[in-house]
Amino acid sequence: MDTWRTAIANSDDTGIWLKGYDIPSLMTQKSFADVVFLLHQGRLPGEHERRLIDAILVAVADHGSGAPSCAAARLVASGNRQSLSAAVAAGILAIGDEHGGAGSACMEMISAGVELAKRDSVSIETAAGRMIDDARANGKRLPGLGHRVHSKDPRTEVLFSLARTGGLAGNGIAFMQALEAAAKEKIKALPINIDGALAAVLHDLGFAPPFGKLVFIIGRVAGLTAEVAEEYAREKAMRIRIPVEYDGVPPRKIE
Amino acid sequence: MDTWRTAIANSDDTGIWLKGYDIPSLMTQKSFADVVFLLHQGRLPGEHERRLIDAILVAVADHGSGAPSCAAARLVASGNRQSLSAAVAAGILAIGDEHGGAGSACMEMISAGVELAKRDSVSIETAAGRMIDDARANGKRLPGLGHRVHSKDPRTEVLFSLARTGGLAGNGIAFMQALEAAAKEKIKALPINIDGALAAVLHDLGFAPPFGKLVFIIGRVAGLTAEVAEEYAREKAMRIRIPVEYDGVPPRKIE
Amino acid sequence: MDTWRTAIANSDDTGIWLKGYDIPSLMTQKSFADVVFLLHQGRLPGEHERRLIDAILVAVADHGSGAPSCAAARLVASGNRQSLSAAVAAGILAIGDEHGGAGSACMEMISAGVELAKRDSVSIETAAGRMIDDARANGKRLPGLGHRVHSKDPRTEVLFSLARTGGLAGNGIAFMQALEAAAKEKIKALPINIDGALAAVLHDLGFAPPFGKLVFIIGRVAGLTAEVAEEYAREKAMRIRIPVEYDGVPPRKIE
Amino acid sequence: MDTWRTAIANSDDTGIWLKGYDIPSLMTQKSFADVVFLLHQGRLPGEHERRLIDAILVAVADHGSGAPSCAAARLVASGNRQSLSAAVAAGILAIGDEHGGAGSACMEMISAGVELAKRDSVSIETAAGRMIDDARANGKRLPGLGHRVHSKDPRTEVLFSLARTGGLAGNGIAFMQALEAAAKEKIKALPINIDGALAAVLHDLGFAPPFGKLVFIIGRVAGLTAEVAEEYAREKAMRIRIPVEYDGVPPRKIE
Repeated sequence: MDTWRTAIANSDDTGIWLKGYDIPSLMTQKSFADVVFLLHQGRLPGEHERRLIDAILVAVADHGSGAPSCAAARLVASGNRQSLSAAVAAGILAIGDEHGGAGSACMEMISAGVELAKRDSVSIETAAGRMIDDARANGKRLPGLGHRVHSKDPRTEVLFSLARTGGLAGNGIAFMQALEAAAKEKIKALPINIDGALAAVLHDLGFAPPFGKLVFIIGRVAGLTAEVAEEYAREKAMRIRIPVEYDGVPPRKIE
Repeated sequence: MDTWRTAIANSDDTGIWLKGYDIPSLMTQKSFADVVFLLHQGRLPGEHERRLIDAILVAVADHGSGAPSCAAARLVASGNRQSLSAAVAAGILAIGDEHGGAGSACMEMISAGVELAKRDSVSIETAAGRMIDDARANGKRLPGLGHRVHSKDPRTEVLFSLARTGGLAGNGIAFMQALEAAAKEKIKALPINIDGALAAVLHDLGFAPPFGKLVFIIGRVAGLTAEVAEEYAREKAMRIRIPVEYDGVPPRKIE
Repeated sequence: MDTWRTAIANSDDTGIWLKGYDIPSLMTQKSFADVVFLLHQGRLPGEHERRLIDAILVAVADHGSGAPSCAAARLVASGNRQSLSAAVAAGILAIGDEHGGAGSACMEMISAGVELAKRDSVSIETAAGRMIDDARANGKRLPGLGHRVHSKDPRTEVLFSLARTGGLAGNGIAFMQALEAAAKEKIKALPINIDGALAAVLHDLGFAPPFGKLVFIIGRVAGLTAEVAEEYAREKAMRIRIPVEYDGVPPRKIE
Repeated sequence: MDTWRTAIANSDDTGIWLKGYDIPSLMTQKSFADVVFLLHQGRLPGEHERRLIDAILVAVADHGSGAPSCAAARLVASGNRQSLSAAVAAGILAIGDEHGGAGSACMEMISAGVELAKRDSVSIETAAGRMIDDARANGKRLPGLGHRVHSKDPRTEVLFSLARTGGLAGNGIAFMQALEAAAKEKIKALPINIDGALAAVLHDLGFAPPFGKLVFIIGRVAGLTAEVAEEYAREKAMRIRIPVEYDGVPPRKIE
C-alpha cells in the first residue's frame, strides 16, 4: 500500500502537531473553536473569527430530541446499549442536505451569486434579484431562506451582529440580505434562517462549501452525546416503539 | 504497514475465490444461504443445513417499521437522502443485545448449559433446571425465552421441525426445550422465542455465539433495504417529527 | 406524531406478514433470495428469477479484505470491540457510487438508453452507439463497462447465461451488450463488469435503479460479517496502524 | 406512541432553549465548550472548568490519519462520496474501549478507588497501591497508564496544571498520581497518559464515566471532519487498497 499523505496532523516520539502547532501549546493557549478553524483553514483565527465559530457551533448544538438526528441516536441507544459510538454515529448519519446540511448548498449559492455579480459587473443586489427570478421561474427552493415558525430568526441577528462588530461582514452577508430583500419584494417574506446565516458568515470567513455541513456535524455532536447519555440514564432499553399502520396487500397464501 | 492476513477471500487476475471456491461456480451451483454458511464455517452446507439458514434469515428479515432498526433507518432516510448506505447502516447500528442480538447471548447460555451437563455428568434437563434456579435466585433474565404477545412462537416450531426432519436436532434444541419446561414448572410459561430458537439451531449447526447476532444482521438488512426504498419512494424528506415533551429546568437567564 | 404508513410488514398477536405472506409459511416454502425479491417487488419470484437474485448476492458477497467496505469494517472492529453492528455498519457506509454502487447508475443509463430507442424509434444498437458517442464527446465514464484486470468477467457470463436459460433476458442485457460492442468499435475493448451485468439483469427483472445499490449492500453484508468475525477471532484490538506521511507545514510557534 | 420526555432542549415559536438558557444568549455570551459542559452537567461552568473542557477537546482532536477512527473515515470517503456524514460517522464507530474510550474505564476505576479509600478509611495512596497489587495478581491492565512512546505525556502535565491553577484538582488527580507512583514502585514506570489525565480531571469536575468516551467523540469529530475534507479535496475516490495476503484453503472444486 502507498503511504497515506496528510497535511493535518503529525506525530513522533516527542509530540503531536496539528497544522504545525504542538498540542500542549494549543491546549494551553487556544480553545476548541480555534482548533476547528485551524484544522479547516490551516491558520489560527483572530478573536472575532473564533467567536463566530463558537457562536455557530452553539447555534446548532441541539434543537430538540425529535429532530431526525437526535431521534435516530435515541432509537439506536434503545436497541443497542453496547456502544455509545453507535448511537452518536447514527445521529450523524441523519444529517444530510435536508437536515442540517442546507448550509453547504447555501454557501454554493452565495459563491455563485457573488461570482455572477463579478462576472456581469452588476451589484450584489442585482445578482440576488436575478437568482430570485430564476428560482421562481424554475420552481427551485432557495437554501437558507424561510422558517416554519420564525418570522425573524434571532440566531441570524446574533451572527450578523457579531460579524459586523468584528469587521468580518463581507459579500456573504451582503448577498444573503439582498436575497432576503428581493424575495420579500418578488415572492414573500422569507427570513434568513440559521442555515443561511451560518452560510453567509462562513463564506465571509473564507471556508469552502462542504464546511457548511461539517460545522453542523461538529456542533450537533454535542447535542447527540447529551441525547444518548440521557437515553441511557433515564430510559429502559427497547422503550421506543413507533406506531405503524400497514396499508399493503392483505394476508394471502403462497401458491 | 503489515500486510493483512485473511482466510476469507482471495483474488487475482484470473478470478475471485471464497474459502477456496471460485465465485462463478458458487453463483451457478449454490445459493446465498450456502455462501453465508460457507463464509462462517469454512465448508459448504448440506441441503438441510442450507434450508435452516434460509429459514432463519427469512424469520428475521422484518417484523414491522416501528422496530428500532427499521425506524432508525427511516429517520436517517428522512434527513439524509444522499446515501442509501447511510440509512441502512443506521438500521444495523440499532441491532444490539436488546434488539436482534439476544441470539448470541442465548448461544452462550446454551454452550454453558451443555458444558455444565457434561462436566457434572448430569442430564441436559438437570442442567437446564439448575440454570432456571440460578436465574431466579439472582434475578437474571434468560435470553431466548418469553414473548410479549405469543404464547407459542410458530417460527420456533418451523425451525425445530426443519432441524428434526434433517436429522440436525442436537443438544441445542434439547437444552432450550428443557429450559422451557423447567421455566414452566418453576416460574411460568415462557415460550421459546425466535431468538432462542435460532440460537438452539445455530448451536446444533456448529456456529460460534457471535453468529447469533450476525445472522440477524444479514437477514434484517433485507428488510432495512425495503424500508429505506419505501421511505424514499413514498415519503417526503423531513416528514418525521417525533413529539417530545420537555420536562427540564424552566427558562432562566445567564448570570 | 402521525402514525407511519407502510406496505412492507404487518404484525399482530397472531403473526407477522411480509407483503401479505405469513412468515412461518415463507420460512417453510421459500428462501432468503425469494424474500429479497418479494420485499422489493411485492410478489414472489419464479424459480429462474430467484436463481438470478441468489447468483447476484453470491457474486458481490466478498472480493477481498482490502476493499473499502471490508477494510472499514475491520478498522472499526480494531478500535471498538463492543459492537459487531458498529463494524458491519461501517463497512456498509463505504458502499457508494464509487464502490459497489455503480449498478444503480448503470440501471439508470440502461433505462435512459431503452427509453431513447423507444422515443426515437431506433434500435437498441443505435441507441447504444449514440450513448457511446455522447460519452466520448463529453468525457463521461460509462458505468458497468471496463475492469482493472479482467478482459472478460466470468461473473457476467454466468448471469447472462442464467437469464437466457430462464427466458428472462430482455432489453437490459441487449442494451449492455450493444454498449459493449459499440465501445469496442469506437473506443476500445471494455468488457461488461459485474456492476453492468447485475444492472442489466435487474433491469430485465423489473427492479428500480436504487436496487442496484441495495442488492450490493445485501450481498456484501455476508462478507462483512465474515470479515468482522475473523478480525475478532484472529487479531488483537488496535493491531492496525496505517502508515502516514505528513507533508504539511513544519512545526511553528503560536504568535 | 408515548411522547418522549427530555430535559435537554425545548423549542416553541419564540425560540430554543438548552437546559433553560435561550440559544441566542448562549451564542452571544458563551463558547461551545461551555455548552458541552452545560448539556452534560445541567449548569454553566466557571471559567477554569470551561478551560479544562476546551483543553481536553483540543487534546483529542486528532493524533494522525492512521488511527482507526481517522482511517475508517477516509476509507468510507474513498468508496462513498455522496455523504460527508457517512464518512464522519464511520470514524466515530471506530471509537470504543480500545480506541479513545479508555477514559470511561479509567473514570470507573477512579470512582472505585476513591470509594475504596472512603469505605476502608484508608488513604488514596493505600487504595491505589491495593489496586496495583490486584491488577498484578490478576493480570489486569490498568486504563490510563502507559504509553507506547512517551515516558511523560506533556498533555497530562497541561491538564493537571490547569486544574491546579483553577483550584479544581481533587481526588481524581490525586488517585491517578498515586496509581502512577505505586505502579512505578511495584511494576515499572507507567506514565499517566491522556486517557488517564482526562479521566482524572473529568472525575474532579463531577462528570459520570460515560462522558470519558463522549468527550473523546466530541473532540475527535473536529479531526474527522478535517480528515474527510482533505480526502475529498486531495485524493481520488477508490485510491485506497489495503494489501492483503490470503492464507486460507487453496482453490478447490464444489463436490
